Amino acid sequence: MSPSLHPFHPLTPNEISKAAAVVRPLFAGQNPSFRVITLREPLKNEMVPFLESEHRGETPGIRPARVARVQVTIPGELGSGKFFELLVDLDQNAVVRREHLVGKHPYIDSSYMQSVEKACMADERIQTEIRKLDLPANASVIVEPWAYATDGLNDMSQRTTMCWFYMRLLQNKDANYYAYPLDLCAEVSEQLQVTKIYHLPSAKDERIREDAKPFDHRKIHSTAASEYHPSLRPAPRTTVKPYQVVQPEGPSFTTQGNFVQWEKWSMHVGFNYREGLTLHDICYDGRSMFYRLSLAEMFVPYGDPRAPFPRKAAFDLGNDGAGINANNLRLGCDCLGLIKYFDGWHTTSSGEPLKLPNVICCHEQDDGILWKHTNFRTENAVVTRARILVLQTIITVSNYEYIFNFQFGQDASIHYEVRATGILSTGPINIGDRVPWGTIVAPGVVAPYHQHLFSLRIDPALDGHANSLQVEESNPLPVDDPSIHNPFGVGYTTSSQIATEEGGLDLDFTKNRTFKIINENVTNPITGTPVGFKLLPSYSQMLLSHPQSYHARRSEFASHAVWVTRYDDDELFPAGKYTMQSTGGDGIASAIESRRKDPAGKASVRNEDIVIWHTFGSTHNPRIEDWPVMPSDKMTVGLKPVNFFTGNPGIDVPVSTQEKNQSVLVQDKGKSGPGCCKL
Amino acid sequence: MSPSLHPFHPLTPNEISKAAAVVRPLFAGQNPSFRVITLREPLKNEMVPFLESEHRGETPGIRPARVARVQVTIPGELGSGKFFELLVDLDQNAVVRREHLVGKHPYIDSSYMQSVEKACMADERIQTEIRKLDLPANASVIVEPWAYATDGLNDMSQRTTMCWFYMRLLQNKDANYYAYPLDLCAEVSEQLQVTKIYHLPSAKDERIREDAKPFDHRKIHSTAASEYHPSLRPAPRTTVKPYQVVQPEGPSFTTQGNFVQWEKWSMHVGFNYREGLTLHDICYDGRSMFYRLSLAEMFVPYGDPRAPFPRKAAFDLGNDGAGINANNLRLGCDCLGLIKYFDGWHTTSSGEPLKLPNVICCHEQDDGILWKHTNFRTENAVVTRARILVLQTIITVSNYEYIFNFQFGQDASIHYEVRATGILSTGPINIGDRVPWGTIVAPGVVAPYHQHLFSLRIDPALDGHANSLQVEESNPLPVDDPSIHNPFGVGYTTSSQIATEEGGLDLDFTKNRTFKIINENVTNPITGTPVGFKLLPSYSQMLLSHPQSYHARRSEFASHAVWVTRYDDDELFPAGKYTMQSTGGDGIASAIESRRKDPAGKASVRNEDIVIWHTFGSTHNPRIEDWPVMPSDKMTVGLKPVNFFTGNPGIDVPVSTQEKNQSVLVQDKGKSGPGCCKL
Repeated sequence: MSPSLHPFHPLTPNEISKAAAVVRPLFAGQNPSFRVITLREPLKNEMVPFLESEHRGETPGIRPARVARVQVTIPGELGSGKFFELLVDLDQNAVVRREHLVGKHPYIDSSYMQSVEKACMADERIQTEIRKLDLPANASVIVEPWAYATDGLNDMSQRTTMCWFYMRLLQNKDANYYAYPLDLCAEVSEQLQVTKIYHLPSAKDERIREDAKPFDHRKIHSTAASEYHPSLRPAPRTTVKPYQVVQPEGPSFTTQGNFVQWEKWSMHVGFNYREGLTLHDICYDGRSMFYRLSLAEMFVPYGDPRAPFPRKAAFDLGNDGAGINANNLRLGCDCLGLIKYFDGWHTTSSGEPLKLPNVICCHEQDDGILWKHTNFRTENAVVTRARILVLQTIITVSNYEYIFNFQFGQDASIHYEVRATGILSTGPINIGDRVPWGTIVAPGVVAPYHQHLFSLRIDPALDGHANSLQVEESNPLPVDDPSIHNPFGVGYTTSSQIATEEGGLDLDFTKNRTFKIINENVTNPITGTPVGFKLLPSYSQMLLSHPQSYHARRSEFASHAVWVTRYDDDELFPAGKYTMQSTGGDGIASAIESRRKDPAGKASVRNEDIVIWHTFGSTHNPRIEDWPVMPSDKMTVGLKPVNFFTGNPGIDVPVSTQEKNQSVLVQDKGKSGPGCCKL
Repeated sequence: MSPSLHPFHPLTPNEISKAAAVVRPLFAGQNPSFRVITLREPLKNEMVPFLESEHRGETPGIRPARVARVQVTIPGELGSGKFFELLVDLDQNAVVRREHLVGKHPYIDSSYMQSVEKACMADERIQTEIRKLDLPANASVIVEPWAYATDGLNDMSQRTTMCWFYMRLLQNKDANYYAYPLDLCAEVSEQLQVTKIYHLPSAKDERIREDAKPFDHRKIHSTAASEYHPSLRPAPRTTVKPYQVVQPEGPSFTTQGNFVQWEKWSMHVGFNYREGLTLHDICYDGRSMFYRLSLAEMFVPYGDPRAPFPRKAAFDLGNDGAGINANNLRLGCDCLGLIKYFDGWHTTSSGEPLKLPNVICCHEQDDGILWKHTNFRTENAVVTRARILVLQTIITVSNYEYIFNFQFGQDASIHYEVRATGILSTGPINIGDRVPWGTIVAPGVVAPYHQHLFSLRIDPALDGHANSLQVEESNPLPVDDPSIHNPFGVGYTTSSQIATEEGGLDLDFTKNRTFKIINENVTNPITGTPVGFKLLPSYSQMLLSHPQSYHARRSEFASHAVWVTRYDDDELFPAGKYTMQSTGGDGIASAIESRRKDPAGKASVRNEDIVIWHTFGSTHNPRIEDWPVMPSDKMTVGLKPVNFFTGNPGIDVPVSTQEKNQSVLVQDKGKSGPGCCKL
């Protein structure tokens, strides 16, 4: 390993090969398949001293060991396959931990899913059922395999795959087959055997059936309404004139490997197969703010109560992987202006490094006005524009797309924006029928209600690692308490509590409830209050599934909007480490509960190294406007300094001038004098 | 009036002169002062047939009369001054209504406020009090007059002005005097007499005092921390490289007078002294959506309970006027790219047309990704970028700035963004003291807690004027009801109610409560549900003042987040038409109540011409990061079609290509092939 490589730097191709080389002999002759070779991030107690000397500008003494986390599966007959996780010390070339994961499953293997599709289509009974449907001559059948969401009806120690069927009417392989769902369903076993075949309910009170109904040809609607691919659409609108971002003097950011610096910000960009983009040691003007920011999990349960639909509930990080499914971002398509790309590295099943090109992009955006004031006495206006640095990754999870953005501001604010786009998951329904848990988006096509629930993991380090969570509310002063002076009934103040124990908390905008991460050991010299950051939450409905349901037990984070926990090196995933066919009980709530029971459990969270988890998302009851491809649905979470600095961190941003901005007047009527541009 | 002038077009300079000429003789010899000459917008029952023929492409038959609303004040001794409102039919050159407004006050007169300042400084007792303060030699005293917020301590039939005192230490007139508040306060009468002088509380339990304390020189803090004007600041950061928006083929919008067309959208841009920017007859693809959109009011009450601070509570529209205080927007300062400006016209006190240049700007912005999908089987990605049309106005209300944006999307969504910036209002405090209703932003300077409560008025016309308000919630299916099939406990459905009566409603994100404006007479051909739009609210704490307080009685809209009323030509302002020193009881709740009592009152709102009012804003407990000038605090409200169309309205937006976007690679490493750009 190159000595200059930063401990937060993802594994290099060489390190991946090295880790595989160390592990391979242990499974000689067993045909091991490498599922994961990724950085086991440095232990915090080793990393903190390293960062402290780095922040002081000194050469750090001891470097934390470079350790690879490796996941291997060993194929076996009749479910005797095995799943191992190993830690490999890359400095020692040694396996330092080896765990046989019994009853756990690795994340989705796309090549295995392809074999599932083939096995399904090769099955004679399925071919018979397809024939019974009597589909149009030109139709080709598409099998869409999904991970099985635990519902208690099958043994979860074995991997089972749900196969949904669609039909493609056009020869063009980019045709939108989700527009033609078939009422057929199959289950495929670990050993690629089709274990069950049945027909889906196609009316509200129908249940799964043995018998096939011939395909209702009225379901064949105009592709014009169901296609999104330009090659299958009428010519697009011609009214959109080009819009280009020009940065004549280059970007305002600099990168050195994965280390990014921009407008007083500095951070390390990380990437792994599961979380995709991660950010480390985020500082502003040399001051430590956050140790790590990451999207930790997301859960997408569907609301159709009828079997087998409760099996549609995706952990898009734990099961699919935001890294492995990250798009190869293309210049001029996904961003404007000057774009810097980062590649990711993964592993092939044989343990060779696999490049994931352009999985992260880094660029600047104008964000309107940062601050403005006009002195009404002198009529002198001063205005500055806001520039943001965007670190973006986009993932495709079969039908859906998610666009994830970390946005850094010159006012030391951070915003995390999620955009949901892509294609709705669909099911069959009789023409003329309706269901109360879905929207008809095309004749015979229902898009079921579902939720998108994200967990943003915030590992703060505000002027150090001992931080607290303060919950503040704004309350009217009483009018009937003689001891309180409020003669006009208009006074209000704030009350606040500091969380002392781990747990989940809820939002309440009616009280202006504000969640602040503070450092009680550092007092702002002017305000006299602890330095802090506040969470600008995304107000969202929590999980609708019953607390006793498998959905709820598997996605523990989805029951509260804000969680506070004591930092633990191994606690990165609020629905548990192994979500694939999980049966619940290993998420954030269970971890908290077990620490609470454990006498040695570190449950105190006041003035400790804590982690804040924000659950947010949307209850997505589809609109037909989301069809055939969905306009981005935006959700934003913010982090803003609250009495962290001694003034507006963006006060020194240069004023906006026409000389620099080169705007152009359209049909000039009003005089456009120099005004605020003249300074 | 030119026959081609659209009925929604604001009054032209000629029409303003004409109206004044008609009114002047009525007040001959009484030295009338013209406060307002603005368009009395066409009556809806006259305008609807006009628009219907216009939408059909026919030449409208009868044009609604052009009517001017004129407000005149007549000076008089000892409060015998009078305030009149007149309606002038500009086609007939006749006054059609004349109203003597007894006990009402017109909006703030800036020239009168200047006389108040002068009167104050000319007052010997005030000079004596200032001398007692023993200010630094180089200090100049600044008087900041404020409209008096009713608190029950003075007779409101007479105009009284509150005068707050600050000191400017530097010669530069752009120095931030809000950084040096003095503990002096005065009240000035209609007749410009100083009626009261007292000293402000400067500790939590202090009350107003007769006696002056000499100025505490420890309050003189470094101007570096308190100035925002570049001429008074150290050199700005030099790291921000230029960022320009280039539109080589011109804008995608066209304007004809005040009629704007862009990407299937069309609308008329209106402007008046009070609301500033208004929008009329908003259509998409020729379909009627909204009759009128406007910011209807805003209220900014402060939370300090001690007299005289309850008198700080500003109606920035009703008292100050968003139009009259609109900034003259400057090219290259307030926007990037191709900018079209609109001027506004107002009146001088003598009734001459007064131009307010560049009060509205119109431009396009890139808004990231509109929609994207990658077919994981073909790996073909299709991505479109979102372009938005922005109609912007910025107002300065003494210390504060507000940036108001209507943003139109290619997916037929509308967003209304408010940014609060500018300088915090401040008061004096003893060094070392603290108060529970404010933040210390500099030595001896407290920025009191306050709220910003906005009312967005939405006058829908979804496929016609008979609309309804539907309130929908998402609820889990019960698990214990045998009649309901929910075997896995994961099912959920929606329930909805349609508002039948006028009233105020509240938000509840925990139920995913969704407010939809629907047209029950028009059913979506595919979904089988009424066409509609949903409100994406801004979740905000409502007014904190006690319901019996003057603040609450004067700002009736501030008690609920969503109001639905029956349309009334004269009901544009939810805190009443005359907010200046108002005593309450003439806002939206009172109007609803009176209609409820009136047997002929039109209180039914189902399938009627209705108006939706959204109250939102912020409980602004200042951060020191808001000092000395505040980074924009963003609030956004959205309106999105819900089953209004038959698919994604942005499906025909051309895909994003490098050929058009001309992005530039920074430090190219990863291959940047054509990818999604190649189509």
